[in-house]
Order: sequence, then structure tokens, then C-alpha cells
Amino acid sequence: MADLPPTPLLDTVSTPADLRKLDPKQLRQLADELRAETISAVGTTGGHLGSGLGVVELTAAIHYVFNTPDDRLIWDVGHQCYPHKILTGRRDRIRTLRQGGGLSGFTKRSESEYDPFGAAHSSTSISAALGFAIANKLAGKPGKAIAVIGDGAMSAGMAYEAMNNAEAAGNRLIVILNDNDMSIAPPVGGLSAYLARMVSSSPYLGFRSLAKKITRKLSRRVHNAAEKAEEFTRGWVTGGTLFEELGFYYVGPIDGHNLDHLIPVLENVRDSEQGPILVHVVTKKGKGYGPAEAAADKYHGVQKFDVITGAQAKAPPGPPAYQNVFADQLIKDAETDPTIVAITAAMPGGTGLDRFAKAYPDRTFDVGIAEQHAVTFAAGLAAQGMRPFCAIYSTFLQRAYDQVVHDVAIQNLPVRFAIDRAGLVGADGATHAGSFDVTYLATLPNFIVMAAADEAELVHMTHTAALHDDGPIAVRYPRGNGTGVALPETAERLAIGKGRIVREGKKVAILSLGTRLAEAVKAADALDARGLSTTVADLRFAKPLDEELIRKLMTTHEVVVTIEEAAVGGLGAHVLTFASDNGLIDAGLKLRTMRLPDVFQDQDKPEVQYAQAGLDADAVVETVLKALRHNDAGVVEGARA
Amino acid sequence: MADLPPTPLLDTVSTPADLRKLDPKQLRQLADELRAETISAVGTTGGHLGSGLGVVELTAAIHYVFNTPDDRLIWDVGHQCYPHKILTGRRDRIRTLRQGGGLSGFTKRSESEYDPFGAAHSSTSISAALGFAIANKLAGKPGKAIAVIGDGAMSAGMAYEAMNNAEAAGNRLIVILNDNDMSIAPPVGGLSAYLARMVSSSPYLGFRSLAKKITRKLSRRVHNAAEKAEEFTRGWVTGGTLFEELGFYYVGPIDGHNLDHLIPVLENVRDSEQGPILVHVVTKKGKGYGPAEAAADKYHGVQKFDVITGAQAKAPPGPPAYQNVFADQLIKDAETDPTIVAITAAMPGGTGLDRFAKAYPDRTFDVGIAEQHAVTFAAGLAAQGMRPFCAIYSTFLQRAYDQVVHDVAIQNLPVRFAIDRAGLVGADGATHAGSFDVTYLATLPNFIVMAAADEAELVHMTHTAALHDDGPIAVRYPRGNGTGVALPETAERLAIGKGRIVREGKKVAILSLGTRLAEAVKAADALDARGLSTTVADLRFAKPLDEELIRKLMTTHEVVVTIEEAAVGGLGAHVLTFASDNGLIDAGLKLRTMRLPDVFQDQDKPEVQYAQAGLDADAVVETVLKALRHNDAGVVEGARA
Repeated sequence: MADLPPTPLLDTVSTPADLRKLDPKQLRQLADELRAETISAVGTTGGHLGSGLGVVELTAAIHYVFNTPDDRLIWDVGHQCYPHKILTGRRDRIRTLRQGGGLSGFTKRSESEYDPFGAAHSSTSISAALGFAIANKLAGKPGKAIAVIGDGAMSAGMAYEAMNNAEAAGNRLIVILNDNDMSIAPPVGGLSAYLARMVSSSPYLGFRSLAKKITRKLSRRVHNAAEKAEEFTRGWVTGGTLFEELGFYYVGPIDGHNLDHLIPVLENVRDSEQGPILVHVVTKKGKGYGPAEAAADKYHGVQKFDVITGAQAKAPPGPPAYQNVFADQLIKDAETDPTIVAITAAMPGGTGLDRFAKAYPDRTFDVGIAEQHAVTFAAGLAAQGMRPFCAIYSTFLQRAYDQVVHDVAIQNLPVRFAIDRAGLVGADGATHAGSFDVTYLATLPNFIVMAAADEAELVHMTHTAALHDDGPIAVRYPRGNGTGVALPETAERLAIGKGRIVREGKKVAILSLGTRLAEAVKAADALDARGLSTTVADLRFAKPLDEELIRKLMTTHEVVVTIEEAAVGGLGAHVLTFASDNGLIDAGLKLRTMRLPDVFQDQDKPEVQYAQAGLDADAVVETVLKALRHNDAGVVEGARA
Repeated sequence: MADLPPTPLLDTVSTPADLRKLDPKQLRQLADELRAETISAVGTTGGHLGSGLGVVELTAAIHYVFNTPDDRLIWDVGHQCYPHKILTGRRDRIRTLRQGGGLSGFTKRSESEYDPFGAAHSSTSISAALGFAIANKLAGKPGKAIAVIGDGAMSAGMAYEAMNNAEAAGNRLIVILNDNDMSIAPPVGGLSAYLARMVSSSPYLGFRSLAKKITRKLSRRVHNAAEKAEEFTRGWVTGGTLFEELGFYYVGPIDGHNLDHLIPVLENVRDSEQGPILVHVVTKKGKGYGPAEAAADKYHGVQKFDVITGAQAKAPPGPPAYQNVFADQLIKDAETDPTIVAITAAMPGGTGLDRFAKAYPDRTFDVGIAEQHAVTFAAGLAAQGMRPFCAIYSTFLQRAYDQVVHDVAIQNLPVRFAIDRAGLVGADGATHAGSFDVTYLATLPNFIVMAAADEAELVHMTHTAALHDDGPIAVRYPRGNGTGVALPETAERLAIGKGRIVREGKKVAILSLGTRLAEAVKAADALDARGLSTTVADLRFAKPLDEELIRKLMTTHEVVVTIEEAAVGGLGAHVLTFASDNGLIDAGLKLRTMRLPDVFQDQDKPEVQYAQAGLDADAVVETVLKALRHNDAGVVEGARA
């Protein structure tokens, strides 16, 4: 803590009310101190840095001009909310970010009245803000709703859906487009090109001329269709017709680091009778911190780092990350198969597809934050004979569920899903956990659902998916690094719906799906030591089940336990359903299913999360012993007399 | 069949290849005959009429100009594809539309090579077409991809996501915007207003001037950024900057019923070196059939009707439709609760919210085809103290799954979901079946999931949802009319997670969720007659389960069967999981789960679908008897020795 930056002015500000007492001339200093404090805090905790640094001035300006929390400020995604947290009563806990019991790395309703709507997935802010604005309108209450959304997030369909519906909110809704030309990866698509043209074609307006124009525009009502049509053809202030066409008044672009511009523009916007208004603000991700500005990803997500040098703490050398194992195998398969193509929704690095893109730039498609399009685009590619891999995090695939059902599963098209970040995700918390994919995919006819127990299995499963042309197939694997097993020299094509026996025993059988396998084996060792001979099977497939193997284990073992890093409705439910359908429980079977608990688990260290979830070796042992105790005591709790 | 219209020219055309042999001057007659045949066919079968009539000329023109099926024609939604089916080898089966074993009411890959991509949900066509175009580009194959999409479908986010990514397809991609200013209900939102402005501000261009301009524009390459910027500010041909900004060349608006305009414009577009191109075509829904043109909904979906008078076959008088029972109760609750608001995604009639809108126009929000926005907008409303009801069909709620998870469930916001068309849907087939909602909602922490057994239950459940402020709550109910039970005068607030015993017995217990209850009772009567005393419980809640009731029935009955109109992972899986967690199966329990089968069921009469699914009274009896036979024979098939 010796390195804490001096922040004399910031020390006097613990809430936006304090901030609003300052003279506007003091805001520059406040912003500088806020930036220093943000850098210092993230240096300690790791987390998202570049996004927050880009909006330091904007954060201060919004809270200075608007009456938060009664005016509702909604940060899209929430990566950029650390300065906001510092200014809204949470500075004392800012060095607990993303840690167990600490502040969330995103906005969160339960944390503060200044977080009226939580986020973490992108592009929800305009819809939510519209909800707040309309609620106030119906209730006759004052209060604006302000959504701050990045240009990357603007590429998602739901942002467009919201803009298309915004007109009803009138001047209660303000959308601030934070155009940093860089969300996580460089932006893609027509919208991005459009914004770039707008910014490059006009210099930032000085605040006097801009404010004057705004005042003139916003105080003038457009009375008839002809005038409106004229308005539309001319564009407004300096451009922005795309937004105007959707019913917004467009203001911008303005320099998002210049408080002398930001404050008067926001004041004008706040006091406008017209609306909804879109304010186009241009910022620089990583602004004001040399190492971040210089880095390719602008320090989007960082480890703890040294504030002076910017050097990030290195992870100890270890097994490769799952996404890279996936990508490297896909590259190998693609060498001999020109029909393999890969699709990511704005996460080339996170999915490993940055590697694939280096090898096959023409066969890699980064569609932006557009999961719905990604999946149906893949379906179209598959229908025309390609072998597409959609690499999407489990939690984000939820964005494309209908496309998975309607365009892929019903048509039985061979789209391959590489589902990253399946299961618990540590510091990213509940919003990013990949808890539901086994349930929501295995319920679909035609789907094959695999889960990799380790990185060697992921190699085989990627290869298996590449060769599977008979319908949709998914492989799920976790966040983080592999277990350290040797990677196979040659990938194997797995038999669909066949598991493997990892360890043979006689009394207890553990049916594992995915990466809880190592804990299952550890538990088996412990059970063996207690004289309970234990079999462990890696089922590999949640769908189709290896019915032969499961039937055999159920008829030869006294206790059968399933384990998976997935919510209720997944493997356990399918195994129970199979057992019940086939009368395997009729004469009594101690069958238990271990799964994620029915709560949204908060961020914490992975091992803590697994213990909380009851998904480690200790919990397996306990589950088995408890099932057996029912028997040994001759009392079967709650069972039929 | 006496009323078949004379169609001498159409009789010579069974495929597009035949069509392309005609002289362009013959196309007017062909279109007239195609229209007459479409009206005649739908008069016989019922189905979607207005949409098809609106695109008769467009259908003929596209197949005349483009080289289908090698050029890939993708109809968005597919409501409008009946004329297309007539022209593509399926005329002989056109009077089997929407019937068991007959033609689908939508495009379907398995039906014809002229249907390269199936549809039924809206707004998928541009993404799919882009997939086809890029696949051809990568493979170096010729062939265009043509998406035909309505203005209503264009309001969905995924259409925007696709447009934002379209540039890479170049001239292989053509999007035809079929602007009929009327999808199912009148259109809403900024985009719709924008299109209306474009159409009203410029008369249709005559084909000579338009073709000339197109030729000039499309043959001129834009070489540098400055030229491109100039291009952008001027708009192109007559407007369309919104599309231009997203990277399209815009052509239009043109009269979609004038073949003398359509043919040369499409020929120019086909031969263009530039692209992607968006062709803005204006059509009239129901065109050419007086009764349809005059009707408010343009005969969007119709019963069988008399071709001369347009009089639709009336459904026999009977119980009210579920959606109206829901809406009427919501109106009652809203009388005393000003915070109740209702949201529909372009289905005011289908969800009953047209009634609510009449009573409370200011509290009804039709957001267009924008389910993602609808749900997060509702979450914002709830966060600001309103009591929002999202009325969405089960199958369409899949479009908003991530919003349900991320914005509603994780934040535990009290958004009410009125889930219509849950379960099988008869003539609408697999794409519209609401099979997965119990599974994908009950797996979520914080969610309450109800299913109404009949229309009286729906009254209670709607009221219960209105009063439930502690988190998200959903009620599912089927397509069609109620069972005929008396509606309660006063709605009752149900205890959360509590079921009810409908019928008491001793040996067999049937746990029913939702509308299979009547069949369960019928089965119980049959079982009783065989001396098998049967209890029937209506669980009401898939989540939380009535654990007390279930435990009691499991410990006092020999056979327990669950039944639901939902896929694997739903009620049955939750009951099995509960039983297994609590050791209720350890000593043997004949527990069976009846659910939708693991296939996408084709369209048919509801009773046929239920029999196929094994979800009628006969199937329940059989399931119980089979479970008992295992016992009586002393042989437990497959169980542990």
C-alpha cells in the first residue's frame, strides 16, 4: 500500500453529491486523481483496466451533470465501471474487485443504488434504460435514464432493437455512444466503418459552436412530415443519420476526454425538451496510462501489474489454456480439410481463434458482438457444404439459443459448437458462468453434446466434431488451463455416445462428465482406502448417453453417482431419465446426481467455488457415504414404507 | 374441386426452368394464374394467405431472373412461400398444406432443393444467405444468395447483425426488402417510420430511369475514402442511407406488383459487379384478393374460406382461447394496479394483448419483432417499480434466453412471463412447438415456473403472477381453446410451489403439469376400472416443486408417473432429481416420466400429435401397466441382481 497515489481532491469526494459541490474548474484534477486511483487499484487486483481509463472524464462529467442515482445511469457491459464505483461510495472496497466477498467487476444492483441495472453481457443498456424511462413516464416521475454503450456493443442486434423502440421515451432517454474504436478486439462490420467515417470526416466541434447548434436544434420542434423529411436528409449537427433514422437526435462527435466540451454538451442534453438523444463521444481506451495506450488490447483485461512499468504478473508456466488447445487442433484439421471455417462473436483471443485466423485468415469470421447472426450464418455455411465451427462462450451462446434450436437443430445441420468457459469461471462471477449449456442443448433432438475431461480429450473431441457431418455437435470445456496431461500426437475420432472406464471397482460407480473427472478419481482413491471399491467412468457424451455402459454399471454397483459442472437438467437428469425409463430404479438403486447448486454463485477463487458448489472430491466421498449410510442403518430416509 | 380456377399457362410450368422459357410478356398472365391458384389452395386448407398474395409477382420475377436452385433463394419466415411452392414442383401437393403428411406451411429443406434453408421464425434469412454466399466464395463456386425479408422482420436485431456483416459477400448477396408496411400487426418503431418516409418522399421510379441509374451506379467502382464519404452523404438512387451506412448498395423503392419494373431491376442487380445490394420493393399484403385487401390483418392467417365471398369457416362455438383468458384476467388485475404493463413482440392478437391494449393503450408496448429487447425492457420496467408482463410464445422466448438469464433471473427481477403456445401446436409444426421452456426456465435459479391445466387455472396463475414481486415468474399454457370449465368469478392467489390433489387413490399416482391433466384423469378412470386405484395431482409448479406432496405420494403409492407437454429436462427430470437427492428411490420406486419424445414432431392434428408423442390417456395406462408388469412377473428388467 506504499504506492497509493496522492489524491487530495478525490479524498473529499465519496459520493456524486460531493462531486457536484466542486467548481467545474476542479474537475480536471479530480479526473486525474480518479485515473491514478483506478490504475493503482487494478494494479493490485487485476481486472478490466483499459475500458475504465477511457471513461474517467465521462464518468465524472455524467455524475456532475446528472442527478444520480435518481437519474438512472446504466453502463453497458460494465467493464468500464471501476471509476464509477470509486465515485459512488465504494472506494473503500475498490481493492477487493473480483475477489471472493469483494466488489463485482461489473455493475450490480445489490452493491449500490448507483447501479440501477447490473450488466456483464453486452448491449443490454438501451433496453434497460428505456424500461426506466418509460416507468418514470407512466408514473409521472421525474428522472432521466442514461445508457453508456460502446461502439462494439452497438453492433449487437438487441441494441438496434432498443434504438428502434426508443422514440416513446422522449427526452427521458439519453444514449451516450462511447466510441473507442476498440471493444475487446478491433471492431468489425458496417456500423464500425460508418462511425469511423463520421469521426474522420469532421473535426470535433468546439463546445461553443456545438452547444449553440444543439440549443438551436433541440429547442426547435419539427412540426410536419416534410420538415422531418428535410431534417432527415440533411443529417443533424454533423451527421449521424443512421441514428436519426431510428428516431434519435444525434449530437457529436465530441472529445470524451475534454471536460470543457463534455460538461456543457451534457448540460444542454440534460435540459433538452427533445429526445431521445444520442451523444457520440470519442474516447481512447487505456487513456492516460502509457503501457495501456501502447498495448494492442489496451489492457482490456489484465493480471495484477506494476504501476510504474506496467509489467503484469505472469501466470506460472503450466499447461496450455483450453482455448488454445482447441484452436491448435482445429488448425491441424483445417490443413487437410478446406471446408473447415471458424466463427467468433468478437472474442478472437478468448476463443483461441486469433491463432486460427493467423493460419487461415480467409476462413475465420469475426462477426462482432452478434451471436445470433454467428449461429445462423454458420447454419447457412453448413447447408452449403462447409464445416463451420462456432466458438462461443457457454454464457454467450444463450444469446443465440433460438438460432441453435430453429436454424441448426430442427434442420439437423452439422454446425460444430466449441463451447468455452463452460462451468464456473472464478473471478468473472455469476454473469459469466457457463452453467446451463448441457441442459439447454441436451434437451434438443438431433444434438450431440460432449464435454472434455482434460486437454487431451479436447483434442479428440475437436477432431471428432470436425469429422461429424450428420448433425449438430457441441464440445464444452472450461475456462483456464488444462490439467497437464500429455497432448496426443494424433487426434482420435471418438465413437459417438461412447464413454470410457477410467478406473475399475465394484461397489461404487462415479459417472463423470467433463473436468470434474480428476476430482472423481481423487474421490475414488479415498473411497477405495475406506474399502469401498470404486469405478470411475468418463461418459464423454451427455447426449447421446452411453446406455450400454450406464446400464452395466447400474446393474453391477450398489451406488451410482453422476458428477458434472452444470446445472440441474443436464447429465444427471438424463441419466435418471434413462434409468427410470428402463426400470433400473424399480428394485432400488442408490443413484445420486451431483451438479451445480440452484443459486447464482458469486465470484471467488475456483477451488472455493467448487467447494461451495459441492463438486470436489470431498463432496463426492460424502455423497457416497451418505447414500450408503441410508442402507447400513436399515433406514431409508423418506422412502416408501 | 369443382371450383379450381382455370390456369392454362401455369399448367405448363412445373419448375422454374419451365418458367424461364416463357416470354416476359407472358409473366403477367402467369402471375394472375398463380394468384388464383394460391387463393384456391388456401381456401381449401386454410393457412397464411395475405403474405403469399403480396409476393406473387416477386416470386415469379425472382425465379425468372435468377438461376434457382443454384442461386439460393431464402424466404424469411416462410409465411409467404405458397406461390413459391406452386412454382417449384410442389403444386400437386399444395392442397395438403399444413396437414399431417402434407406440405409444411413454411420452407423446409427436406421438401425441395428449392428450399435451401427452412424458416418459420423471422429474421434469419440474411444471416443464412450470407452463409451460402460466403461458402460459394470460399469454394470458388458461382451462385448468388437472395434473401427476401419483410419490413417487420427487419426490425429484429439479428437482421441488423447480418446486415452489419454483409459486406464480405460482395455481389453474391442480394437482400430484397419486401416492404408491405404490415407484417402481422401494423409495424412499429423507428425503422418502420423511416421506410414509410422513404416511400412517401419519392414516387416509384419508372424502370427506364431506375435501370439507367442502377447501371451507372453499379458499374462505377468507388476508389477512395473521400469518394465513399461523398457517396454516403448523398445517399444513393433515391435514399436508403441507413442501409448504405451498413455497407449495402440500396435500390428502390420499386413497385413489387409491376413486372415491367421488377424484371429489369432484378436483371441489373443480378449482373452487378457491386454488392451486396438491397432492393427495396413495395408490395401490398393480400394483393389481388378483395376480401384480403379489405381485412384489417390482410388475411394473415386464415381458416378454410369460400373463395367467392371470402367468408372463413367459423370454428364451432366453444370455450375461449387461452390467450384471451389470460388477457381478460390481466385487464382485471390492471384495473386496481396501475403498475401492471404488458409487452408483446409483434403479436398483439396472438397473445391476447390486443384486448389489453384497448383497455390500457398507454400501458401496452408492442416492440416489434424484438424479443431480446422486450425482455430486457421488461427487466428495466421491473427495476423501476412496474409490474411487467411479457407475453411471448414459448418458441419465440428462445430468442431472448440470455436476456431471461442475465437480465431477469440473475438480478431476480419480478418480470412476469405469459408463455403462450407451450407444447405441441398442430398445423404450425415443429418450428412453432413450445417444447423446451420448462427445461430452459426451470434450470435457472430464482425462477418460478407454472403451467395451467385449464383456463380456470390460467386465471388464477395470471393473478398469482401479478401479485408476485419476489422474482421472475412464468406461466405456460397451450395453443387453442380451453377445456370448457367454468371460469372463476374471482381469481385466487395460489400458494407458490403448491400443487393440488385432483383425485385420490392408493396404488398409482399421476403427477401432472399443465394441460395433460384431463388425459391423466381419463387414464385414472381406466386404471380404477382395472382395480388400480389411482391418485391424480396437478402439480401446478414445475419449480419450485411441491416437495411435501411429492414425497407423500412417493411413499404411499407403488407407481408414480409424471406427465407434461414438454421435452426431457423438465418436470420429470426435476421430480427424478428430487427423488434421487432424497433417497426416495433407494428402496425401489416405480417412477416413470412421460414427456415429449426426443424428435421434432411434424405438423398434424393435435390428437394425432399427442398419440405420436405418447401423451394421451392410453399411453398413461400403458406406462402404468408396464411398470407394474415388471413387478408382477417378479422380473425387474435390467435392474441390479
